[in-house]
Amino acid sequence: MLEACRRPEMICEITLQPVRRLGVDAAILFSDIVVPLVAVGVDLEITPGVGPVVARPFREEADLRRLPDLDPASVDYVTEAIRLLLPELGPTPLIGFAGAPFTLASYLVEGGPSRTHARTKALMYGAPRVWHQLLERLARITLAFLRTQIAAGAAAVQLFDSWVGALSEADYRRYVLPHSMTVLRGVAETGVPRIHFGVGTGHLLAAMAEAGADVVGVDWRTPLDEASRRVGPHRALQGNLDPAVLLAPWEVVAEQARRVLTEARSAPGHVFNLGHGVLPETDPDTLARLVDLVHSVSAST
Amino acid sequence: MLEACRRPEMICEITLQPVRRLGVDAAILFSDIVVPLVAVGVDLEITPGVGPVVARPFREEADLRRLPDLDPASVDYVTEAIRLLLPELGPTPLIGFAGAPFTLASYLVEGGPSRTHARTKALMYGAPRVWHQLLERLARITLAFLRTQIAAGAAAVQLFDSWVGALSEADYRRYVLPHSMTVLRGVAETGVPRIHFGVGTGHLLAAMAEAGADVVGVDWRTPLDEASRRVGPHRALQGNLDPAVLLAPWEVVAEQARRVLTEARSAPGHVFNLGHGVLPETDPDTLARLVDLVHSVSAST
Repeated sequence: MLEACRRPEMICEITLQPVRRLGVDAAILFSDIVVPLVAVGVDLEITPGVGPVVARPFREEADLRRLPDLDPASVDYVTEAIRLLLPELGPTPLIGFAGAPFTLASYLVEGGPSRTHARTKALMYGAPRVWHQLLERLARITLAFLRTQIAAGAAAVQLFDSWVGALSEADYRRYVLPHSMTVLRGVAETGVPRIHFGVGTGHLLAAMAEAGADVVGVDWRTPLDEASRRVGPHRALQGNLDPAVLLAPWEVVAEQARRVLTEARSAPGHVFNLGHGVLPETDPDTLARLVDLVHSVSAST
Repeated sequence: MLEACRRPEMICEITLQPVRRLGVDAAILFSDIVVPLVAVGVDLEITPGVGPVVARPFREEADLRRLPDLDPASVDYVTEAIRLLLPELGPTPLIGFAGAPFTLASYLVEGGPSRTHARTKALMYGAPRVWHQLLERLARITLAFLRTQIAAGAAAVQLFDSWVGALSEADYRRYVLPHSMTVLRGVAETGVPRIHFGVGTGHLLAAMAEAGADVVGVDWRTPLDEASRRVGPHRALQGNLDPAVLLAPWEVVAEQARRVLTEARSAPGHVFNLGHGVLPETDPDTLARLVDLVHSVSAST
C-alpha cells in the first residue's frame, strides 16, 4: 500500500479508475492518511488486515522531535502523480486528500488503529501542553501536504478526520478545532474549496463547519435536512448514503439513493456521496448504476 | 469466558467483585451477550482478542430454525448464580443483563464482531421479512432470558444494544424498535425498572426511550442536558463519563466527574456511570476513588 502511494504512475492509475469505470464527477487523489507522516520520517508500516502500525508510538514531549516540518520535495511523487493526472482528467476536477491532526495523532499515540482511542485521550486530558504541541506539528505537516497538492493542480481538498467522532463537542472545540482550523484557514489562502470529512460526527457538524470548511461530510446517521441546519446556510453538505446499502438488491439501492436526493433538496449545494468509504464487498456494477441514477435524477430536477 | 459464564460460583464471585472492591450502589450480573444464544444451541465460541465467532453465520430463512425458544432450564446456572448472589448482596440491588435483538443479530449475521455491520444491514435492507423474523426470535429469547433473571431475584434489568448506533433513526424505528419494544414491554409486566444501553446512540435517544426504557444510557458524546431533552421528562439517564478519562491523572478524573454531576442537575433521576465499559488498562484504585467522589458530591447536594 505505502509503496503504491509513492509511485506516480500507480497513484495516477488508481486515481483514474473510478472516473473511467464509474463516471463520477470528480477524482480523489489515491493516497493514504499516513503518507505525510512517512514523508517526515516516522517509522511505520501498513500491516494487511490491521492498518498503520507505528514502530515507536508517540507518548511524551521528547517524541515531538520526530515530527519535523514536511519538505515538499519529500512528497515529489505526489506532485509528479498530479502532473500525470491533470491531462488524463481533462475537465474532471481532482480533489486533494489529507488526514486531519486528530486522526493522525491517534495513529501516532495508539501505535495503530484503535476502537477506543484511550491512550490518545489520556494524553489529551493528562498532558494538554504536549497534546497541543503534537497537533500543532501535525497541522503544519498536513497544511504543507495539501498546499503541495494544490500547487501541483488539485482543484479542491478533502480533510479526513476519520476518528474524531469519538470526542464530545466540548472536547473537540478545546483540543482539536484550533488545529483543524490552522489547516483549513491555511488552505483558504489558495482559494480552493475545502471539504471536511468525518464519520459518526453528527454531534460535531456545527463545530467542524466552524473549523473552516466549505463542504462538510455527513454520514447516514444524520438526515441531510438536520445536518444542513447544523452547519448553517453558507456551507454545503457531502453524503450521505450508507455504503452498506450497496450490498442490498438494486431496487433497495435505488430507493435509498432517491431518498437521499429528495432530502438533499433542503441542503443547498449538496454533493452526492457515500457516507463513508466503499466496502470491499461492493459490486462495481452497482456503483456504476448508482452514478447513472444520481446523474439522471439530478438532470431532471 | 463462556465457561465462566456458566459456572454459578464464578458468576457470583465476579459479580460481587466491584461491589466489594469499589463500593458501587448496584451489582450487574456477570454474563456475556451471547450466553442465551449458546443456551438455545447456536454453535459459537469467544475467541480471545476477537470476540464471539459463530461457526455458521445466519444468512437466510432456513437459518431461523437454529433459533428455538429459550428454555429457562438451559440457563439454570444463571438462576443458581442469582440465588447465591442475593444473600451476599444484602440490600445492594442486582441488575440483570441481556443483549438486544439488533446487536445479537449482528453477531449471528456477521459471524463475529464487525466495524461496518455490512452483512447485517444487507440482510435488513435486502430481505426485510427474514430480518423481522430473525429479530422476533431474538426478542423472544432475550425476553425469556431477562424474565428468568427477574424470577430469580434481579431487581432491575439492562438491555445492551451495543452496536445499534450504526443505524439512522429512521432505520432504527423501522427495523429494530418494534423488537426491542417486545423485550422491554414484556419486562414491564414484572414491574422492575428497565435500563436501555447503547453507545454512539445520541441520535437514537428519543427512539430508544420510546422502545420502553425507564432509564436510557448515554455516552460522553451527548451532554446530559441535551440527552434529557431528547428522552423526555419521564425517563432517567445513565452515564456519561468517558471511560478514557480514567486513564488521565486523578485531578482530571475528578474535574470531569464533577462536570458530569453538575450537568446531571438538569437530568432528573440521573444514574452516574461511565458512558461505556471500563477499559482494561484502568487502575482499580481510580475507580474506587471515583465511586467515593460521586458518593460525597451526591451526599452534599
